[in-house]
Amino acid sequence: MTLTPQAQALLETCRVGHLATASADGQPHCVPVCFVYDGDSVWIALDEKPKTVDVSQLKRVRNVQQNPRVSLLLDHYDEDWTRLAWVMVQGRAALTQLTPPVVHALHQKYPQYLTMHIEHALRITPDRFRYWHSGERES
Amino acid sequence: MTLTPQAQALLETCRVGHLATASADGQPHCVPVCFVYDGDSVWIALDEKPKTVDVSQLKRVRNVQQNPRVSLLLDHYDEDWTRLAWVMVQGRAALTQLTPPVVHALHQKYPQYLTMHIEHALRITPDRFRYWHSGERES
Repeated sequence: MTLTPQAQALLETCRVGHLATASADGQPHCVPVCFVYDGDSVWIALDEKPKTVDVSQLKRVRNVQQNPRVSLLLDHYDEDWTRLAWVMVQGRAALTQLTPPVVHALHQKYPQYLTMHIEHALRITPDRFRYWHSGERES
Repeated sequence: MTLTPQAQALLETCRVGHLATASADGQPHCVPVCFVYDGDSVWIALDEKPKTVDVSQLKRVRNVQQNPRVSLLLDHYDEDWTRLAWVMVQGRAALTQLTPPVVHALHQKYPQYLTMHIEHALRITPDRFRYWHSGERES
Protein backbone atom coordinates (compact mmCIF):
# COMPACT_ATOMS: atom_id res chain seq x y z
CA MET A 1 0.00 0.00 0.00
CA THR A 2 1.40 3.42 -0.92
CA LEU A 3 1.17 6.17 1.66
CA THR A 4 1.36 9.86 0.89
CA PRO A 5 4.31 11.68 2.55
CA GLN A 6 1.87 13.44 4.89
CA ALA A 7 0.29 10.17 6.01
CA GLN A 8 3.73 8.61 6.43
CA ALA A 9 4.83 11.56 8.59
CA LEU A 10 1.79 11.27 10.85
CA LEU A 11 2.34 7.52 11.21
CA GLU A 12 5.92 8.21 12.32
CA THR A 13 5.33 11.17 14.63
CA CYS A 14 2.00 10.36 16.28
CA ARG A 15 2.68 9.18 19.83
CA VAL A 16 -0.76 7.89 20.68
CA GLY A 17 -3.39 6.32 18.48
CA HIS A 18 -7.01 5.56 19.26
CA LEU A 19 -8.20 2.05 18.56
CA ALA A 20 -11.87 1.36 17.92
CA THR A 21 -13.09 -2.21 18.13
CA ALA A 22 -16.61 -3.59 18.37
CA SER A 23 -18.03 -6.60 20.14
CA ALA A 24 -19.95 -9.27 18.23
CA ASP A 25 -23.20 -7.53 19.16
CA GLY A 26 -22.01 -4.13 17.89
CA GLN A 27 -20.92 -2.24 21.03
CA PRO A 28 -18.00 -0.01 20.02
CA HIS A 29 -15.01 0.42 22.35
CA CYS A 30 -12.26 3.03 22.08
CA VAL A 31 -8.89 3.05 23.85
CA PRO A 32 -5.65 5.03 23.48
CA VAL A 33 -2.77 2.88 22.24
CA CYS A 34 0.94 3.07 21.55
CA PHE A 35 1.94 1.59 18.22
CA VAL A 36 4.61 1.11 15.59
CA TYR A 37 4.18 0.61 11.86
CA ASP A 38 6.75 -1.60 10.16
CA GLY A 39 5.68 -0.80 6.60
CA ASP A 40 3.41 -3.83 6.55
CA SER A 41 1.48 -4.13 9.82
CA VAL A 42 0.61 -1.83 12.69
CA TRP A 43 1.64 -3.33 16.02
CA ILE A 44 0.03 -2.38 19.31
CA ALA A 45 1.86 -3.71 22.35
CA LEU A 46 -0.27 -5.12 25.11
CA ASP A 47 2.04 -4.09 27.89
CA GLU A 48 2.04 -6.45 30.75
CA LYS A 49 2.34 -5.00 34.16
CA PRO A 50 2.33 -7.46 37.05
CA LYS A 51 1.61 -11.02 35.99
CA THR A 52 -1.95 -10.71 37.24
CA VAL A 53 -2.84 -9.09 33.90
CA ASP A 54 -3.90 -11.65 31.34
CA VAL A 55 -3.97 -9.92 27.95
CA SER A 56 -6.78 -12.15 26.75
CA GLN A 57 -8.99 -10.47 29.35
CA LEU A 58 -8.57 -7.02 27.82
CA LYS A 59 -11.79 -5.83 26.22
CA ARG A 60 -9.93 -4.78 23.04
CA VAL A 61 -8.61 -8.35 22.70
CA ARG A 62 -11.94 -10.00 23.45
CA ASN A 63 -13.59 -7.76 20.84
CA VAL A 64 -10.98 -8.57 18.20
CA GLN A 65 -11.42 -12.27 18.85
CA GLN A 66 -15.17 -11.87 18.24
CA ASN A 67 -14.84 -9.37 15.39
CA PRO A 68 -11.39 -8.70 13.90
CA ARG A 69 -12.33 -5.46 12.15
CA VAL A 70 -10.79 -2.37 13.70
CA SER A 71 -10.33 1.32 13.02
CA LEU A 72 -7.14 2.97 14.28
CA LEU A 73 -7.04 6.76 14.22
CA LEU A 74 -3.77 8.66 14.35
CA ASP A 75 -4.18 12.37 14.79
CA HIS A 76 -2.61 15.39 16.34
CA TYR A 77 -4.91 18.02 17.81
CA ASP A 78 -4.02 21.64 17.21
CA GLU A 79 -5.91 24.73 18.39
CA ASP A 80 -5.33 26.11 14.90
CA TRP A 81 -8.05 24.15 13.19
CA THR A 82 -6.53 24.80 9.76
CA ARG A 83 -3.75 22.40 10.85
CA LEU A 84 -5.90 19.42 11.80
CA ALA A 85 -5.07 16.14 10.10
CA TRP A 86 -5.44 12.45 10.69
CA VAL A 87 -4.73 9.04 9.29
CA MET A 88 -7.33 6.32 9.66
CA VAL A 89 -6.23 2.71 9.38
CA GLN A 90 -9.01 0.24 8.67
CA GLY A 91 -8.02 -3.38 8.87
CA ARG A 92 -8.16 -6.65 10.72
CA ALA A 93 -6.43 -7.31 14.00
CA ALA A 94 -5.25 -10.46 15.72
CA LEU A 95 -3.61 -11.28 19.04
CA THR A 96 -0.04 -12.37 18.43
CA GLN A 97 3.44 -12.49 19.94
CA LEU A 98 5.77 -9.56 19.44
CA THR A 99 8.80 -10.32 17.28
CA PRO A 100 12.32 -9.07 18.18
CA PRO A 101 12.37 -6.40 15.41
CA VAL A 102 9.03 -5.05 16.61
CA VAL A 103 10.16 -5.03 20.24
CA HIS A 104 13.24 -3.10 19.07
CA ALA A 105 11.08 -0.59 17.17
CA LEU A 106 8.82 -0.16 20.21
CA HIS A 107 11.85 0.45 22.44
CA GLN A 108 13.20 3.02 19.97
CA LYS A 109 9.90 4.90 19.76
CA TYR A 110 8.89 4.51 23.41
CA PRO A 111 11.82 4.23 25.85
CA GLN A 112 9.15 3.74 28.52
CA TYR A 113 8.87 0.13 27.35
CA LEU A 114 12.53 -0.58 28.19
CA THR A 115 11.64 -1.27 31.81
CA MET A 116 8.48 -3.21 31.07
CA HIS A 117 7.82 -6.75 29.99
CA ILE A 118 6.14 -6.72 26.60
CA GLU A 119 5.34 -9.95 24.86
CA HIS A 120 1.95 -9.81 23.18
CA ALA A 121 0.48 -7.47 20.60
CA LEU A 122 -2.52 -6.76 18.50
CA ARG A 123 -1.23 -6.87 14.94
CA ILE A 124 -3.32 -4.94 12.45
CA THR A 125 -3.20 -5.93 8.80
CA PRO A 126 -4.37 -2.77 7.06
CA ASP A 127 -6.99 -2.92 4.32
CA ARG A 128 -6.94 0.82 3.82
CA PHE A 129 -5.20 3.98 4.98
CA ARG A 130 -7.08 7.22 4.70
CA TYR A 131 -5.45 10.61 5.16
CA TRP A 132 -7.61 13.65 5.95
CA HIS A 133 -6.55 17.24 6.49
CA SER A 134 -8.43 20.38 7.37
CA GLY A 135 -10.13 21.96 4.40
CA GLU A 136 -10.90 18.65 2.82
CA ARG A 137 -14.50 17.55 2.87
CA GLU A 138 -15.14 15.07 5.66
CA SER A 139 -17.03 11.85 5.18
CA MET B 1 -24.79 9.73 37.23
CA THR B 2 -22.09 10.72 39.72
CA LEU B 3 -18.63 11.43 38.40
CA THR B 4 -15.48 11.33 40.45
CA PRO B 5 -13.62 14.67 40.66
CA GLN B 6 -10.85 13.26 38.42
CA ALA B 7 -13.33 12.18 35.74
CA GLN B 8 -15.10 15.55 35.97
CA ALA B 9 -11.78 17.36 35.54
CA LEU B 10 -10.89 15.35 32.43
CA LEU B 11 -14.34 15.97 30.95
CA GLU B 12 -13.79 19.70 31.44
CA THR B 13 -10.18 20.00 30.29
CA CYS B 14 -9.95 17.49 27.44
CA ARG B 15 -9.95 19.41 24.15
CA VAL B 16 -10.42 16.49 21.79
CA GLY B 17 -12.28 13.24 22.26
CA HIS B 18 -12.25 10.14 20.11
CA LEU B 19 -15.60 8.77 19.06
CA ALA B 20 -15.98 5.12 18.13
CA THR B 21 -19.08 4.05 16.26
CA ALA B 22 -19.82 0.84 14.38
CA SER B 23 -21.86 0.15 11.26
CA ALA B 24 -24.74 -2.33 11.33
CA ASP B 25 -22.38 -5.02 10.06
CA GLY B 26 -19.79 -4.37 12.78
CA GLN B 27 -17.11 -2.24 11.09
CA PRO B 28 -15.74 0.14 13.76
CA HIS B 29 -14.97 3.77 12.88
CA CYS B 30 -12.97 6.25 14.97
CA VAL B 31 -12.81 10.04 14.56
CA PRO B 32 -11.51 12.92 16.68
CA VAL B 33 -14.31 15.17 17.96
CA CYS B 34 -14.85 18.38 19.88
CA PHE B 35 -17.48 18.12 22.56
CA VAL B 36 -19.16 19.66 25.59
CA TYR B 37 -20.82 17.91 28.51
CA ASP B 38 -23.78 19.69 30.07
CA GLY B 39 -24.09 17.42 33.09
CA ASP B 40 -26.63 15.27 31.28
CA SER B 41 -25.58 14.65 27.68
CA VAL B 42 -22.35 14.88 25.73
CA TRP B 43 -22.77 17.04 22.63
CA ILE B 44 -20.57 16.71 19.56
CA ALA B 45 -21.01 19.52 17.05
CA LEU B 46 -21.12 18.50 13.41
CA ASP B 47 -19.55 21.65 12.13
CA GLU B 48 -20.77 22.64 8.75
CA LYS B 49 -18.34 24.17 6.40
CA PRO B 50 -19.69 25.18 3.00
CA LYS B 51 -23.26 24.13 2.43
CA THR B 52 -22.11 21.26 0.25
CA VAL B 53 -21.57 19.24 3.45
CA ASP B 54 -24.66 17.33 4.43
CA VAL B 55 -24.18 16.07 7.99
CA SER B 56 -26.29 13.00 7.29
CA GLN B 57 -23.57 11.89 4.89
CA LEU B 58 -20.91 11.75 7.61
CA LYS B 59 -19.93 8.16 8.34
CA ARG B 60 -20.24 8.76 12.11
CA VAL B 61 -23.87 9.87 11.57
CA ARG B 62 -24.72 7.01 9.22
CA ASN B 63 -23.29 4.55 11.73
CA VAL B 64 -25.26 6.03 14.62
CA GLN B 65 -28.45 5.86 12.57
CA GLN B 66 -27.79 2.14 11.99
CA ASN B 67 -26.44 1.42 15.47
CA PRO B 68 -26.78 4.10 18.17
CA ARG B 69 -24.21 2.59 20.54
CA VAL B 70 -21.02 4.60 20.83
CA SER B 71 -17.86 4.80 22.90
CA LEU B 72 -16.32 8.23 23.46
CA LEU B 73 -12.81 8.30 24.90
CA LEU B 74 -11.42 11.42 26.57
CA ASP B 75 -7.77 11.19 27.39
CA HIS B 76 -4.63 13.22 27.67
CA TYR B 77 -1.40 11.60 26.55
CA ASP B 78 1.68 12.21 28.68
CA GLU B 79 5.22 10.89 28.12
CA ASP B 80 5.26 10.18 31.84
CA TRP B 81 3.20 7.01 31.73
CA THR B 82 2.48 7.21 35.45
CA ARG B 83 0.24 10.18 34.57
CA LEU B 84 -1.95 8.51 31.95
CA ALA B 85 -5.68 8.69 32.52
CA TRP B 86 -8.89 8.54 30.57
CA VAL B 87 -12.63 8.69 30.81
CA MET B 88 -14.69 6.39 28.62
CA VAL B 89 -18.30 7.32 27.96
CA GLN B 90 -20.49 4.47 26.75
CA GLY B 91 -23.93 5.44 25.60
CA ARG B 92 -26.35 5.97 22.76
CA ALA B 93 -26.09 8.77 20.25
CA ALA B 94 -28.61 10.47 18.01
CA LEU B 95 -28.48 13.19 15.38
CA THR B 96 -30.16 16.32 16.72
CA GLN B 97 -30.23 20.12 16.51
CA LEU B 98 -27.96 22.10 18.80
CA THR B 99 -29.79 24.15 21.42
CA PRO B 100 -28.78 27.75 22.26
CA PRO B 101 -27.22 26.81 25.65
CA VAL B 102 -25.13 24.14 23.98
CA VAL B 103 -24.04 26.50 21.20
CA HIS B 104 -23.04 28.95 23.94
CA ALA B 105 -21.05 26.26 25.76
CA LEU B 106 -19.33 25.23 22.51
CA HIS B 107 -18.43 28.87 21.82
CA GLN B 108 -17.03 29.24 25.34
CA LYS B 109 -14.92 26.11 25.09
CA TYR B 110 -13.92 26.46 21.43
CA PRO B 111 -13.74 30.07 20.20
CA GLN B 112 -12.95 28.53 16.80
CA TYR B 113 -16.69 27.86 16.43
CA LEU B 114 -17.55 31.58 16.66
CA THR B 115 -16.87 32.04 12.96
CA MET B 116 -18.50 28.80 11.86
CA HIS B 117 -22.07 27.80 11.28
CA ILE B 118 -22.96 25.02 13.69
CA GLU B 119 -26.46 23.64 13.77
CA HIS B 120 -26.44 19.88 14.16
CA ALA B 121 -24.93 17.59 16.77
CA LEU B 122 -24.58 14.04 17.85
CA ARG B 123 -26.06 13.96 21.33
CA ILE B 124 -24.81 11.11 23.49
CA THR B 125 -26.96 9.92 26.35
CA PRO B 126 -24.44 8.20 28.61
CA ASP B 127 -25.16 4.78 30.06
CA ARG B 128 -21.84 4.64 31.85
CA PHE B 129 -18.74 6.69 32.58
CA ARG B 130 -15.55 4.85 33.35
CA TYR B 131 -12.45 6.54 34.72
CA TRP B 132 -9.08 4.83 34.40
CA HIS B 133 -5.67 6.00 35.56
CA SER B 134 -2.19 4.58 35.29
CA GLY B 135 -1.48 1.92 37.88
CA GLU B 136 -5.01 0.63 37.80
CA ARG B 137 -5.55 -2.71 36.16
CA GLU B 138 -6.85 -2.32 32.63
CA SER B 139 -9.77 -4.23 31.24
